[in-house]
Amino acid sequence: MRDGEQTPGVSLEPEKKVWIARNLDALGVDVIEAGSAVTSEGERDGIRAVVKENLKAEICSFARIVKGDIDYAIDCGVDSVHLVVPVSDLHIEQKLKKDRETVKSNAIEMVEYAKKHGLIVELSGEDASRADLDYVIDVFKAGVEAGADRLCFCDTVGVLRPEGTYDIFRRLVTELRVPVSIHCHDDFGLATANTLAALKAGASQAHVTMNGVGERAGNTPLEEVAIALKYLYNVNTRIVLENLYPTSKLVSRLMGVPVAPNKSLVGDNAFVHESGIHVHGLMANTATYEPITPETIGRKRQIVLGKHAGRSTVEMALQGLGLTATGQQLDEITKRVKCLGDKGKHVTDADLMSIADSVLGRNTEARIKLIDCTILSGNHATPTSSVKITIDGQEVVESGVGVGPVDAALNALRKSVSGVADIKLDEYRVEAITGGTDALVDVWVKMSRDGRVISARGSGPDIIMASVQAFVEGMNRLIQEKNGIVKKP
Amino acid sequence: MRDGEQTPGVSLEPEKKVWIARNLDALGVDVIEAGSAVTSEGERDGIRAVVKENLKAEICSFARIVKGDIDYAIDCGVDSVHLVVPVSDLHIEQKLKKDRETVKSNAIEMVEYAKKHGLIVELSGEDASRADLDYVIDVFKAGVEAGADRLCFCDTVGVLRPEGTYDIFRRLVTELRVPVSIHCHDDFGLATANTLAALKAGASQAHVTMNGVGERAGNTPLEEVAIALKYLYNVNTRIVLENLYPTSKLVSRLMGVPVAPNKSLVGDNAFVHESGIHVHGLMANTATYEPITPETIGRKRQIVLGKHAGRSTVEMALQGLGLTATGQQLDEITKRVKCLGDKGKHVTDADLMSIADSVLGRNTEARIKLIDCTILSGNHATPTSSVKITIDGQEVVESGVGVGPVDAALNALRKSVSGVADIKLDEYRVEAITGGTDALVDVWVKMSRDGRVISARGSGPDIIMASVQAFVEGMNRLIQEKNGIVKKP
Repeated sequence: MRDGEQTPGVSLEPEKKVWIARNLDALGVDVIEAGSAVTSEGERDGIRAVVKENLKAEICSFARIVKGDIDYAIDCGVDSVHLVVPVSDLHIEQKLKKDRETVKSNAIEMVEYAKKHGLIVELSGEDASRADLDYVIDVFKAGVEAGADRLCFCDTVGVLRPEGTYDIFRRLVTELRVPVSIHCHDDFGLATANTLAALKAGASQAHVTMNGVGERAGNTPLEEVAIALKYLYNVNTRIVLENLYPTSKLVSRLMGVPVAPNKSLVGDNAFVHESGIHVHGLMANTATYEPITPETIGRKRQIVLGKHAGRSTVEMALQGLGLTATGQQLDEITKRVKCLGDKGKHVTDADLMSIADSVLGRNTEARIKLIDCTILSGNHATPTSSVKITIDGQEVVESGVGVGPVDAALNALRKSVSGVADIKLDEYRVEAITGGTDALVDVWVKMSRDGRVISARGSGPDIIMASVQAFVEGMNRLIQEKNGIVKKP
Repeated sequence: MRDGEQTPGVSLEPEKKVWIARNLDALGVDVIEAGSAVTSEGERDGIRAVVKENLKAEICSFARIVKGDIDYAIDCGVDSVHLVVPVSDLHIEQKLKKDRETVKSNAIEMVEYAKKHGLIVELSGEDASRADLDYVIDVFKAGVEAGADRLCFCDTVGVLRPEGTYDIFRRLVTELRVPVSIHCHDDFGLATANTLAALKAGASQAHVTMNGVGERAGNTPLEEVAIALKYLYNVNTRIVLENLYPTSKLVSRLMGVPVAPNKSLVGDNAFVHESGIHVHGLMANTATYEPITPETIGRKRQIVLGKHAGRSTVEMALQGLGLTATGQQLDEITKRVKCLGDKGKHVTDADLMSIADSVLGRNTEARIKLIDCTILSGNHATPTSSVKITIDGQEVVESGVGVGPVDAALNALRKSVSGVADIKLDEYRVEAITGGTDALVDVWVKMSRDGRVISARGSGPDIIMASVQAFVEGMNRLIQEKNGIVKKP
């Protein structure tokens, strides 16, 4: 957690630390580095709160080879310290302005000090991958003699290669008699491979973070190591694999660090399929285009439509919406889906239904039409909206308030159709807006009625009107499919 | 580009394909797989448009071992086809419902057909990493005899290990007399390591995508391979390294696929530093916490403030704002910055200035106060806003219109201070909104006045008021620093 939290701009309040720690514990991790006690008063409150949880995992604090750092850690009641000693000449000479001998004797002294106070000590060589390996081993041996329980080799700026890592760890585990950990950074995209190489060579422990969060390009992703160990190296860990995805989501949300859609295992797209070839294969056997099933890590498969869609994809999606089409109709619908995809659009359920309407010759007129929508907001005004719509030609006027103008407008709309259907907004999503205040905003909604779920989209430079557009589109789709039960107002 | 575009929900219109192709060509890539000609009419328009550019790179189309696919490719005028033949029994039996012999003879036939039409042929074994290697080599040898110019070994679902990849490629390059490519997927986070292992074993070519975009967890990131080859393996490529970051940004923008902040090399945080220890080290020598300088790939270092900030970080940031503090003042400012960081906040320029004001005993009263702000919007209304502010106690009332309510409100605010200062909004950013319409929205703005730039933040459930809050905060900071030139209205 400590290095993960060193993601620039991220800071976890005590309650968030506790929340994450509980989930890491349930996930089955052995050691939780809850923070660096010297950092700040708030940080210490957080570490203390984690200690109080009495988790199964060992609770650890980061510390430099400085007495004060260790005192703060003791004060927080942690089980162990991750005691970091810079070992490269670059760090020793340029950052610390010291020499090898002084650093080594400081390290010994601090290991003894921490042991005297009953702490488990993991002595860590910072920037070890750019250091003289003989010196690193020299410091490690001295540390073990002084009482260090574990050692850690840090690739502080991510410059290890897997084959080199393997060789280094062969030597470390041969020459040292205590468990050795590997701590990698992902600056060149090799953190996972280097971590696996070290474990293969005999490392006993790996420092990892959920989603690979951390300083700069981050650390080794926990989820990748756990899954690769099991599925590529046939090694079982104590990690509860089906908790990986929920924990990933939690950490991303609490830290405010988004996960890329194409992140392995936990990214939005990791189990999403669009292309016709792939969906065709998946329908025969999901293993064709999936190395593991999404359920393994607690998530679900998803099929999306776009220009790479084939007949199989479209057929599967139509089935999902309760629609059937003849072979010829299916060809035509597929063609139109691809055509919409060609324009660079994500094809939503509502888009597909509108295409299907036209191809299948179904009634295509929208039952709900937006006539008028007005929004008033301000620092002294309760965000308020009035809407006038027609449902099957009958005019309905409603108003609503909300925490903001979008909320107010959608509340008014929801009320305006309450006589006809009980519509829920399950999810509301706006892609990040960058550039200026006139940037195009894409709003995506997931709505439901009696358990039936559909997605719809709206876009424009006005976030309110884009949201209203998406919502009206979705409402129409939801009530169109249930003609029978419409009550006239 | 083809596999990158297979990112679910992504589709590139022809002009976007051309734009990306031009940049890839300038970046120095050898082959651009512009698309899969059979996909759709729009796809073919895009491939033709790329061909017309007459780039230095070879232009390629994806094709299955189906005559129609090759005909479409020929029709687009490409130089080469990436001819993909499923080689695992899983794909042959379950997806194609064929047998090994049939697939092999189809492959031979299609290689001959493509060669007869003057195409360069790269014959690719799909799902080769889960196939019988003897059969793969058998198909490859038959393909070469039929005229294939290059071969490609595909790890279609990303299950290769680096050490296994090395062994496979040693055998491939020993037994086959034409260049062999490696094509990896990142399902387990090992795409880069596997690609590098294949190249080390003698592969002549690697299939890569910018930012690692692609189906599911995506493909091998181009930027990681180019940088690792140079800095870890001492191998120069034709890639123009300083174009990597600009090309990454372009691809992300045109595809609409965001890059994670902790993505190696091209993520927002890859060269951002917060923690005191790191900034202290960087000030002595940037190599202490950076494997390469950010300028190598065309970007810049950035220092941010938060709870991990140390005196060095704060001093550096104050200097950037043109402020100086004594040692004691610096301690106090650092303490308060950490305290704000403890609350989970990103510390903006405006936050730092407000802390510095109080510690340095500067005039802390905001010169601009927002008295009233009203917004009216709707489907038939031009988004309109009125604002009433006081500047040094003097009331100013203004109104503005815009493409949306936020735009209108900020336009009104900008007009209201035009008598005092000419303030520009350089950047407006809203983090992705997920959850419901009552989710907390974080607005971040970068504003400037006469070349002086500052950042400020606003947040709340109402996107308009959060934006107004950020803008007023920023305006105050920009005019406060130039007391002298205030004109009374």
